[in-house]
Amino acid sequence: MRTGPGELALVERIRARASGMRHRGLRLGIGDDCALLRLGPGEELCVTTDLSLTGRHFRMEWHPAEAIGHRVLARGLSDVAAMGGRPLAAFLSLGLPAEVTIAKGRQKAWADRFFDGLLELAQLHQTPLAGGDLAESPVALADIVLLGAVPRGKALLRSGAQAGDLIYVTGKLGGAAAGLELLGRQPESGRKAIAAGRIPARLRKDLQPHLFPQPRLAQGQWLLRRGMATAAIDLSDGLSTDLTHLCEESQLSAEVDAEALPVHDGATLAQALDGGEDYELLFTAPPEVRVPAAITGVSVTRIGRMIAARRGQAQISLRTGVSSQPLMPHGWEHFR
Amino acid sequence: MRTGPGELALVERIRARASGMRHRGLRLGIGDDCALLRLGPGEELCVTTDLSLTGRHFRMEWHPAEAIGHRVLARGLSDVAAMGGRPLAAFLSLGLPAEVTIAKGRQKAWADRFFDGLLELAQLHQTPLAGGDLAESPVALADIVLLGAVPRGKALLRSGAQAGDLIYVTGKLGGAAAGLELLGRQPESGRKAIAAGRIPARLRKDLQPHLFPQPRLAQGQWLLRRGMATAAIDLSDGLSTDLTHLCEESQLSAEVDAEALPVHDGATLAQALDGGEDYELLFTAPPEVRVPAAITGVSVTRIGRMIAARRGQAQISLRTGVSSQPLMPHGWEHFR
Repeated sequence: MRTGPGELALVERIRARASGMRHRGLRLGIGDDCALLRLGPGEELCVTTDLSLTGRHFRMEWHPAEAIGHRVLARGLSDVAAMGGRPLAAFLSLGLPAEVTIAKGRQKAWADRFFDGLLELAQLHQTPLAGGDLAESPVALADIVLLGAVPRGKALLRSGAQAGDLIYVTGKLGGAAAGLELLGRQPESGRKAIAAGRIPARLRKDLQPHLFPQPRLAQGQWLLRRGMATAAIDLSDGLSTDLTHLCEESQLSAEVDAEALPVHDGATLAQALDGGEDYELLFTAPPEVRVPAAITGVSVTRIGRMIAARRGQAQISLRTGVSSQPLMPHGWEHFR
Repeated sequence: MRTGPGELALVERIRARASGMRHRGLRLGIGDDCALLRLGPGEELCVTTDLSLTGRHFRMEWHPAEAIGHRVLARGLSDVAAMGGRPLAAFLSLGLPAEVTIAKGRQKAWADRFFDGLLELAQLHQTPLAGGDLAESPVALADIVLLGAVPRGKALLRSGAQAGDLIYVTGKLGGAAAGLELLGRQPESGRKAIAAGRIPARLRKDLQPHLFPQPRLAQGQWLLRRGMATAAIDLSDGLSTDLTHLCEESQLSAEVDAEALPVHDGATLAQALDGGEDYELLFTAPPEVRVPAAITGVSVTRIGRMIAARRGQAQISLRTGVSSQPLMPHGWEHFR
């Protein structure tokens, strides 16, 4: 990779910061042609990649750089959580305009704030940044790769649900979409301040689910260990879309009880159904299994059941009282 | 991921084509939150990511789409080759303008031609495409992730060279840079025809090293099996830059014999030294080891030796006859 002086310095800063985090599975990190990793005995590897683009997944003029870094990593960690995996290492390919890699006066460079957010979440989940690539790009983009380990043959798949299984979600839904809407409603000067990292105290709580979503790694691993869930998926595109994926892979339909949905404070039912980016887990379990009301501190809510698909067509219906209507996959359209 | 009709259709086409390729290590490919992979007993994992951007690593108006797909994958495979690894699976994150995903009349969509090139090379090296991400992007970009397996503790590293070791390279050097220069010299109409996939017969041989470089996987694995090499790196940035990396990681200096360099037909010495993108392997071996003149059909040439670093400063000198001058890392600047 050819790099300008700002970028080269950034690579060195990343390398120095990333090498501080050790992990027993990581034998060799940044600095060779490849990183080297080991699995424990009886484990297999789960791998996911997620591409985030400015204007589509984030906006540099809306989002604090720390939140963008956090969200990029959270997307990947959440996929590992949905398999019940334990994260082994992250790899990041980053395309950035040259000017954001250089500090302005006393202000940290945007790129360093991005890494502050990303590495704080990485530290929380003991996930070393083991490699990646960096290139100057007219548009900012970040492709995150997550590697995780699961006991062989035990990963939580989308395809394992059975007719009659009950459907559960962790946490609250719609908070990320409500937070984004709140951000969009701010005057331009307010958004500018937020993007610069100055989040007013009165908005902090409501913006939190959008800016700093928490991937449910402990909960996914708990479900895998207990052998409780027949299928699982993370809610990245929105309940209506992600439950459709699970239905399709399990060749089933689903009924969702509107009144049972754990709608986030300040969010609408539509945001809870279609909002996306909540990064909660949705999972299914047989009706005879006693699923607790909370897993490692995060609430769990039963929201519906899996049923046989009519004519092989996976479909979701939303029940309100005695009436029922089809729920179409209207996953959140990001910035469209 | 939200996608337009053209993109959605492309995802389905990729999934159908990718699922045709089976691999014993791949337990679950495209379609769940993560792909699942297994390692053989006594193996560890090598991982690399390479970001390719239009205007920097390729030009849609210069390069045939098939060559861009080939080169994107070759970059990743070459890193696995440099560790002596056996490729397990590839993951691709792709950002594309919507229009290139749709066929025009009888012409295949650009994106399908890209996958023709990528999947042909994948097939050749039995590397399934096991996942990835796709997003609409104003600029075309491709981030390739390669996972490979190596026997535990046996990977070829950059850091293992010893003073006195001899330096070898596979194949010929400078052919890729000479090919790019030849491409740049064509009239615009000629380049347009080439980008559309119509490469004149008289140019085919000379453009080949630039458009369709061959990663040296068999040669890397052969070196690892024989335990012959003390260090290795692939020549992606150019000999002067990549040998500097190897010197730095091994804390040594190097002497290169200009007259020994296997300069590619039609290439200059400068292109062989600084050209980059040849994707040959450079490796070191103790002087008492008998390195053959060819490994699985690819020539091997001794080009110099590793020496102690003066004052801890890694430095390369280029010897021509009895004179010697410092060789600075002037890796090829791509499209700069």
